[in-house]
Amino acid sequence: MEDERFHRGLETVRRIDAENAGRLEEALKDIAPDLYRYIIGFAFGDVISRPGLDLKTREIVTVSALSAMGNARPQLRVHLNAALNAGCTRDEIVEVLMQIAVYAGIPASLNALAQAKEVFAEREGKGRT
Amino acid sequence: MEDERFHRGLETVRRIDAENAGRLEEALKDIAPDLYRYIIGFAFGDVISRPGLDLKTREIVTVSALSAMGNARPQLRVHLNAALNAGCTRDEIVEVLMQIAVYAGIPASLNALAQAKEVFAEREGKGRT
Amino acid sequence: MEDERFHRGLETVRRIDAENAGRLEEALKDIAPDLYRYIIGFAFGDVISRPGLDLKTREIVTVSALSAMGNARPQLRVHLNAALNAGCTRDEIVEVLMQIAVYAGIPASLNALAQAKEVFAEREGKGRT
Amino acid sequence: MEDERFHRGLETVRRIDAENAGRLEEALKDIAPDLYRYIIGFAFGDVISRPGLDLKTREIVTVSALSAMGNARPQLRVHLNAALNAGCTRDEIVEVLMQIAVYAGIPASLNALAQAKEVFAEREGKGRT
Amino acid sequence: MEDERFHRGLETVRRIDAENAGRLEEALKDIAPDLYRYIIGFAFGDVISRPGLDLKTREIVTVSALSAMGNARPQLRVHLNAALNAGCTRDEIVEVLMQIAVYAGIPASLNALAQAKEVFAEREGKGRT
Amino acid sequence: MEDERFHRGLETVRRIDAENAGRLEEALKDIAPDLYRYIIGFAFGDVISRPGLDLKTREIVTVSALSAMGNARPQLRVHLNAALNAGCTRDEIVEVLMQIAVYAGIPASLNALAQAKEVFAEREGKGRT
Repeated sequence: MEDERFHRGLETVRRIDAENAGRLEEALKDIAPDLYRYIIGFAFGDVISRPGLDLKTREIVTVSALSAMGNARPQLRVHLNAALNAGCTRDEIVEVLMQIAVYAGIPASLNALAQAKEVFAEREGKGRT
Repeated sequence: MEDERFHRGLETVRRIDAENAGRLEEALKDIAPDLYRYIIGFAFGDVISRPGLDLKTREIVTVSALSAMGNARPQLRVHLNAALNAGCTRDEIVEVLMQIAVYAGIPASLNALAQAKEVFAEREGKGRT
Repeated sequence: MEDERFHRGLETVRRIDAENAGRLEEALKDIAPDLYRYIIGFAFGDVISRPGLDLKTREIVTVSALSAMGNARPQLRVHLNAALNAGCTRDEIVEVLMQIAVYAGIPASLNALAQAKEVFAEREGKGRT
Repeated sequence: MEDERFHRGLETVRRIDAENAGRLEEALKDIAPDLYRYIIGFAFGDVISRPGLDLKTREIVTVSALSAMGNARPQLRVHLNAALNAGCTRDEIVEVLMQIAVYAGIPASLNALAQAKEVFAEREGKGRT
Repeated sequence: MEDERFHRGLETVRRIDAENAGRLEEALKDIAPDLYRYIIGFAFGDVISRPGLDLKTREIVTVSALSAMGNARPQLRVHLNAALNAGCTRDEIVEVLMQIAVYAGIPASLNALAQAKEVFAEREGKGRT
Repeated sequence: MEDERFHRGLETVRRIDAENAGRLEEALKDIAPDLYRYIIGFAFGDVISRPGLDLKTREIVTVSALSAMGNARPQLRVHLNAALNAGCTRDEIVEVLMQIAVYAGIPASLNALAQAKEVFAEREGKGRT
């Protein structure tokens, strides 16, 4: 059953952003390999793979939370990509980040938009939407 | 044009939660009446009324941001109501708040869920979904 | 295996604070019963029950994090109790909270100490250390 | 020299808000009496009593910081009073708190203004400006 | 009237830091040009240009808020410059940032001072105070 | 007595991380030399040198607080080193940082672990544990 949970998580994380799933494993394998298993199991196997919200909405939740908190730049970058992978358009992401200005202040919005701009450019360089 | 902007904002805020729009005006009229005008104009007239995201998604953005920040309880309560008014189901809100545990920690999720429970009960008491 | 993980978590959470384990289940059972299972599994079964740190040190970690963040009062109260249950003395807890003033500012320290004072008094009322 | 520092701090804290200085001592005397001495010495003796900024400006700094952080309500209340004691007008405080909306978001501003409203009413009840 | 508001904002933002006003427009023009208009209108046209506080005090408010929050480095840099432009002395800025140590912790103060040091050196290189 | 306090602080900060004590003095000597004295006196002379907690536990408190707050990277780096100097093993630090995922979210944990990885590698390069 634990295996099932881990595999469901792995499937979900790969569907969101296969490249990043590999990077996460790589980043943690020497220092905290168990945390990799827990994150896949809990974040992706338990929570993100639940049927109650589609993946696109889930990525909007994550992008909103991370840009409002303003202290998790590497993860915001990952989830800006993941949101696009899950079917958000660039315009929708920009709408989300503009709205953050209302609730978390204009600097939080500007800093997230600066990251979005980088992500959009990077993807353009690779020929992705 | 400024009037147009204010009226668009007022219409939006009333569509989201008419009762709360009144409370906001009431709360600010003695101490900072201009801020009431700015909030209606900027938050609701400029940003929230933009066509790029539907109101339901916008409320999911706000609920995600406020529950992740964890220091804006009165506004989270308002927007849990607004999310329901905008067509979110209770189950969808619970999914959003569970996901916050992954990105902002379990306490942020539990505190937002405790507020959601109160909002759900209050609405039930009034015969609303 | 999943069952094993849940039971290990349940055992750990009950060892820390049996009363609170019950309250958590009660709080979540109507609104987000699956989250209760995830928290027991991930927070307590995966992380807190790991052998690499004793429970007393783990509670010091939690009390430090929550008092520095300053936006999780109900959880800080739970973990002030849990720290005492795990063998921290009151004096040790006070030392931890005083140190928070250096890193998160004097208000964060004062607010956590005010909660500690309430927890100490409450336990005294029940004849507990 | 240490005594001099403590006395300078005590003089400053009493000048800002004599009543609150007493409450702080009272709050800490049983649980962390040394912290009371450190706060008077460091916060008020070392920093706040420095000649480089007048007390009114210093209180504006504190009110700005605490309202932006949004997780130190009891201290914000103290410093709203202290700002008024130091010569800020109510209108100036309202200007400061409105500006917080730009940098920390509208909820941070609204929550601080709600506290300011309470403080203003309380002082009116006592016949103070 | 809307035009009046935008022009008042533009005038204010240029008075604070003309170079930065240009950078903001540049940064947003491709990704969120409307947000540029909203920021000029709301932040600068509505709020910052209000007569109730002089510009120097307004920049002290902003520097205090941003350094306490600690997650808006690019904006803190802009407003350290803006504060100097508005008539703050370097010594006054240092006093503000030292005081942040009391309320938001020593790391927040040290990180803001490190940025101030860079800004001061940069301006020296350009022969500005 | 003030001298005694400063010297006790200096001794403590040097015991924790002599190299960093020098860097702190260097960083502040031009811009805020008095703050250097206050930090040594208050943070290290008053608080950290108190006998109520051993230095290893004190560093665990600091690492927990800073990684949970997530906006004090340079100080987290200093205190990851200090924790190792005070007798924490790498495994213990990793346990602390994994636990932060539960209370402050997975991004806070991952970002602190990424810094720990750098610190561990840097020390390895210098032949230190």
